[in-house]
Amino acid sequence: MKKYTLGIDVGGTNIKLGLVSSVGKVVSRTCLDTSSFKSNKNKFIQGIALAADELMEETKINRKDILGVGVGLPGLVDPVKGVVNFLPNISGWKNIPFKKLLQDELKIPTVIDNDVNLVTLGEWQFGAGKGYKNFVCITLGTGVGSGLVLNNDLYRGEGNVAGELGHIPINEKGPKCSCGGWGCFESYVGNQYLIEKGSKIFKNKNIQLEDVFNLANHDNVRAVQFWDEVATHTGNVLVGIINLLNPRLIIIGGGVSNSYKYLGATINKIVKQRAMKIPASMVKIVKAKLGDDAGLIGAHVLVKERSR
Amino acid sequence: MKKYTLGIDVGGTNIKLGLVSSVGKVVSRTCLDTSSFKSNKNKFIQGIALAADELMEETKINRKDILGVGVGLPGLVDPVKGVVNFLPNISGWKNIPFKKLLQDELKIPTVIDNDVNLVTLGEWQFGAGKGYKNFVCITLGTGVGSGLVLNNDLYRGEGNVAGELGHIPINEKGPKCSCGGWGCFESYVGNQYLIEKGSKIFKNKNIQLEDVFNLANHDNVRAVQFWDEVATHTGNVLVGIINLLNPRLIIIGGGVSNSYKYLGATINKIVKQRAMKIPASMVKIVKAKLGDDAGLIGAHVLVKERSR
Repeated sequence: MKKYTLGIDVGGTNIKLGLVSSVGKVVSRTCLDTSSFKSNKNKFIQGIALAADELMEETKINRKDILGVGVGLPGLVDPVKGVVNFLPNISGWKNIPFKKLLQDELKIPTVIDNDVNLVTLGEWQFGAGKGYKNFVCITLGTGVGSGLVLNNDLYRGEGNVAGELGHIPINEKGPKCSCGGWGCFESYVGNQYLIEKGSKIFKNKNIQLEDVFNLANHDNVRAVQFWDEVATHTGNVLVGIINLLNPRLIIIGGGVSNSYKYLGATINKIVKQRAMKIPASMVKIVKAKLGDDAGLIGAHVLVKERSR
Repeated sequence: MKKYTLGIDVGGTNIKLGLVSSVGKVVSRTCLDTSSFKSNKNKFIQGIALAADELMEETKINRKDILGVGVGLPGLVDPVKGVVNFLPNISGWKNIPFKKLLQDELKIPTVIDNDVNLVTLGEWQFGAGKGYKNFVCITLGTGVGSGLVLNNDLYRGEGNVAGELGHIPINEKGPKCSCGGWGCFESYVGNQYLIEKGSKIFKNKNIQLEDVFNLANHDNVRAVQFWDEVATHTGNVLVGIINLLNPRLIIIGGGVSNSYKYLGATINKIVKQRAMKIPASMVKIVKAKLGDDAGLIGAHVLVKERSR
């Protein structure tokens, strides 16, 4: 029996590769710098194939032990056709038959999907969403997205682009968003916006979100308030999700969720104040469990599902 | 073969009863005044039973020709247990085993559901939603709600209360809403709010929405602007729905949709400006087809579905 899957999690900053065991554990991993491939698609595919080969060699896991390859990509992906429609943070990737290109190079059956869907699948089978039939898994990072598990199924939408929670407007008038709209949730809590905001507040051009987290950890009042504002916007968008979808669970993942200790209480307070009583009373809001491995583990879930 | 179903559509103002044929046509109907029963649940049940008897007698359709009774109720309903949890516009109805009470009185198998779900089922099988797998059916009226057909199934949520589109906040700060929250879509476009707004603009305490519609029909600038504002709020909430759920279709029903000719263009304009290109390009926004009969016809769909 083939025991492993190869998970590949493509991000705007780096590309993670990991061999995932049948119980959903990442047994070996490596990482590439996304920027080094940006301009060249062939180099990108070859770079991934090379890294995969090295990973297998290192771990003495052969091609024939690998059930399949699952790839998460940060953007609009057609998992049925295996085509990358558009990646907002990696330029030049439009309508690329990514699945075929990588499969031809790796010689292992390959499936591709949106990265947030993979995180959701990972959390569903092996993380915070285990056993739930109706939940929303949110990722707060450079992009803000969500995966929707509804009626015990990952809901993909008519054209496989459902879940764009970051682009739900939270105000009728609001800041311009990278998507072309305005007032979107992401334009209040996306990493880029938060870093800009942090630079201004703390008068430090090179500030990182970890710095603001550390400041909050040292009881810096403005840093605590900074996270409280993130939580308020998050609570506000979740009120709509709870009233519309009546989920049993909301999972909060992505880089910003590392500050969950400064977010959780305010998010829950807003939901209690503002959402309808019955759906609010049956929803639990929790931090994601799988951390940075969620995408790789979700790739494993997708491969298993597709190979059934 | 049993040919008919008895549909009952309970509204805050009146209760419609109709015998629906197997092809989804209302062949005979009657109407009761809701307010006459408000305070007395037994009278309510008996009143409905009496009206149903009269309807059958009139049409020479016997009990044995009726497959079942389907009831739509304006509020939170548990269709599995057959219990009415809460009706915001009909006081005193809390945790009532409505299905059992009515079934005992009528001696015909009875199913109950939220009224908007029935409208959605009706439009899905016999109206504007025919053949669609992913769509949202909105009702704009005293209450503002929606039914969600996702992955070719009516999505009900964890506790059967999904679809409360009227209570998606469209602003982080906004007017108090009857649900206890604030800034909800319904608090901008619900009938009560619109009538209040119309009374002020047109300095007429007794103005009805039909009057504002007629004024717009006569090119009254302020009336046209009135509907344009309704459309703008509607477009704004739909942007979030389109980005989140990537539906193929949005159906707009309910009383306010009678003004669709003053709403459609602006709604579509806002969606084009503000929603993400891919989901926006694949969604069609249309007016509901079944009008006032949608609930009765949907009751028929529910009865057929449950009796399979």
